[in-house]
Amino acid sequence: MKKILAELLTIGDEILYGQIVDTNAQWMSIALDKIGVKVIRKTTVGDVEEEILTAFEEAEKRADIILITGGLGPTSDDLTKPVLAKYFNCGLAINQEALAEVTEFFKSRGRELTELNRQQAALPTASEKITNPVGTAPGMWFEKGDKVFMSMPGVPHEMKKMMTDHVLPRLANKYTLPVIYHKIIRTIGLGESYLAEKIAGWEQSLPPHIRLAYLPSLGEVKLRLTCYGESSAMLENEANTSIEKLNEIIGQNIYGYGEDPIEVVIGKTLRSKKLTLSIAESCTGGYLSHLITSVPGSSDYFLGSMVPYAYEIKMRQLGVKPETLEKYGAVSEPTIIEMANIVRAKFNSDIGVATSGIAGPGGATPDKPIGTVWIAYSDKHHTVTKKLQLSKDRMINIRMASMAVLNLMRLSMPE
Amino acid sequence: MKKILAELLTIGDEILYGQIVDTNAQWMSIALDKIGVKVIRKTTVGDVEEEILTAFEEAEKRADIILITGGLGPTSDDLTKPVLAKYFNCGLAINQEALAEVTEFFKSRGRELTELNRQQAALPTASEKITNPVGTAPGMWFEKGDKVFMSMPGVPHEMKKMMTDHVLPRLANKYTLPVIYHKIIRTIGLGESYLAEKIAGWEQSLPPHIRLAYLPSLGEVKLRLTCYGESSAMLENEANTSIEKLNEIIGQNIYGYGEDPIEVVIGKTLRSKKLTLSIAESCTGGYLSHLITSVPGSSDYFLGSMVPYAYEIKMRQLGVKPETLEKYGAVSEPTIIEMANIVRAKFNSDIGVATSGIAGPGGATPDKPIGTVWIAYSDKHHTVTKKLQLSKDRMINIRMASMAVLNLMRLSMPE
Repeated sequence: MKKILAELLTIGDEILYGQIVDTNAQWMSIALDKIGVKVIRKTTVGDVEEEILTAFEEAEKRADIILITGGLGPTSDDLTKPVLAKYFNCGLAINQEALAEVTEFFKSRGRELTELNRQQAALPTASEKITNPVGTAPGMWFEKGDKVFMSMPGVPHEMKKMMTDHVLPRLANKYTLPVIYHKIIRTIGLGESYLAEKIAGWEQSLPPHIRLAYLPSLGEVKLRLTCYGESSAMLENEANTSIEKLNEIIGQNIYGYGEDPIEVVIGKTLRSKKLTLSIAESCTGGYLSHLITSVPGSSDYFLGSMVPYAYEIKMRQLGVKPETLEKYGAVSEPTIIEMANIVRAKFNSDIGVATSGIAGPGGATPDKPIGTVWIAYSDKHHTVTKKLQLSKDRMINIRMASMAVLNLMRLSMPE
Repeated sequence: MKKILAELLTIGDEILYGQIVDTNAQWMSIALDKIGVKVIRKTTVGDVEEEILTAFEEAEKRADIILITGGLGPTSDDLTKPVLAKYFNCGLAINQEALAEVTEFFKSRGRELTELNRQQAALPTASEKITNPVGTAPGMWFEKGDKVFMSMPGVPHEMKKMMTDHVLPRLANKYTLPVIYHKIIRTIGLGESYLAEKIAGWEQSLPPHIRLAYLPSLGEVKLRLTCYGESSAMLENEANTSIEKLNEIIGQNIYGYGEDPIEVVIGKTLRSKKLTLSIAESCTGGYLSHLITSVPGSSDYFLGSMVPYAYEIKMRQLGVKPETLEKYGAVSEPTIIEMANIVRAKFNSDIGVATSGIAGPGGATPDKPIGTVWIAYSDKHHTVTKKLQLSKDRMINIRMASMAVLNLMRLSMPE
């Protein structure tokens, strides 16, 4: 089966200059991937006629489907329509249906139609008008041989509505598309290169129609399996068999499949086990609590936190013994054990966790360099600690230490 | 003067498939714009040799500077290095300096160097190695006639460090770039469209060689003046005169100029006034503390926080009076006043701030819809409160409420 290829073309100086981030391209990629269209390139050019024309030419050579966003506004720096007309060798003319729609759009909002707005109904005559029910700039569908050019507004919710209601169904109908099955495997606790080495044999054993990608971010590595074939059920079966084998190698490090990040997975576990959580976090400074409370409904299991940043607060507010702090220091195993146990007792929660470390750039000592972090987990059965040696970078250390606590929770919570 | 043009090339299936958003391109656009390099195109291609080679060829025809990110990981799907070697007609060989650096990187973290890691030191022989002080994949600088190809890791903080420390200064040195003077004006407390309306007259009075851009983000709007001319000193003068006039209109909302976000500005004020801070945050769940502690050296003024998420914890741990909670509820002015005063007294700090609200999506009541948030500031002179009505989105509310507290601090701290 011939692969159907798409190119995403964004037009607009504001993206080239970095004034806005192009989030449309990501949304379109995911939507196209789901229907089996392969995105082979994303291109952004400015509001310059020659640049846009060249981009059209190049894209037409490479792709079957060219999806264009941006440059449809009513102002003079918006060039997409005249350049499309030039490219398709036709004129621009007021489309009566489009004019009726844009008139109605303004009328329904109690606003008057200006001449500038009226020009939004002027479309290249070679195009088919695609209704924009949530905005004023219509979309334009062009066909050239087997190829499709589709021009859409850059406003995200307008583009998404047009794609969902019209473009995606029509593309799925026009082309013969393959079946694709995706599966995300979420791992934690192994760096990318260690993970890659551990599963190299497994990776090599994957059949050629199953592709593996590593998606590392701070504190975790996602693995993505992309399976190409004829039947979705068969591919799902195959993917699951592969994942079973992967589980035999790194099962301990797999915390989930799909979209849920670790803080959501931990939240679901806490809720289903009816366990409550409290936190005493020093070097992570509130970020761990933020991760936990970023999850809607976290008040079901999260009772609260102390951020005992200053030495005095660790003693007087949290209640770590002065002897412990004096003898071992704030960044030590005895202190972290007390912190986790005390917060659990004070807040009367089932689980208490704690962090204490040198986030940097200041605060290092000869035996405790920047990136030294102690973390602890405590419940009524046991207290578990771990010493981390992280990076020189403050924000990385804050993030990595927080992720490590979530992983420690995952591994230490009662069955 | 010949304009120096750049193309940004991102390599990676994960971006084409929409698994991650390419935020690097925006950061690089802004950084290049600042030194007077014009970005004419952004391109993303997948991990496919022919696609990458074509992208190199096309970019070389259009641009003087080709900045490449991604595809430098240690795994087999990372193709940037072999394809660069092919394009520059050279081999890959272990660079001894790079090997020493990557070895040291792993050693400093107490980890062993694997063969895969070792391969990160294999570089195209036509390239000059650029040190990556915060990661394992070195950068590569190539020159071809007047053109520069620079390949960097896709990990944002690694790319940024390499750009800032090496690439940008070197480009500014190599090419004759126009004189551009940039000034960032940081505003808080006014939405973008309201701000735009307030300063429309001022904007129209700017001379044509001074360009204004709005850079809104959650909780603040940055204004960027870009001034083109011959002499940096003259442009700076002109910009300052314009800013003086702006100050007459929205002076109250300007919290700074340049790179420092509000949490850094607040931190500097606290340090210089020798004031200490403690926080009682409920609906912001740790994020406000995280903002404060994301600033290096914040332990000089930040004593600590309570996150009294559960009702019980608000009473028993923080010490809000049960009568107050019962009579007015947790999201109320009387409660927020107590929270700020109590945390200040308990933690013995000069300033106490507090948040309590309905972040959503749950928890709304008829008279307290999602997005209702009370914030308070307390010092020995006065207690100031503010009621916010934010959005329907949990993460937006957490961010906006925290920013509003920082703004309230700015406006309420003693002279």
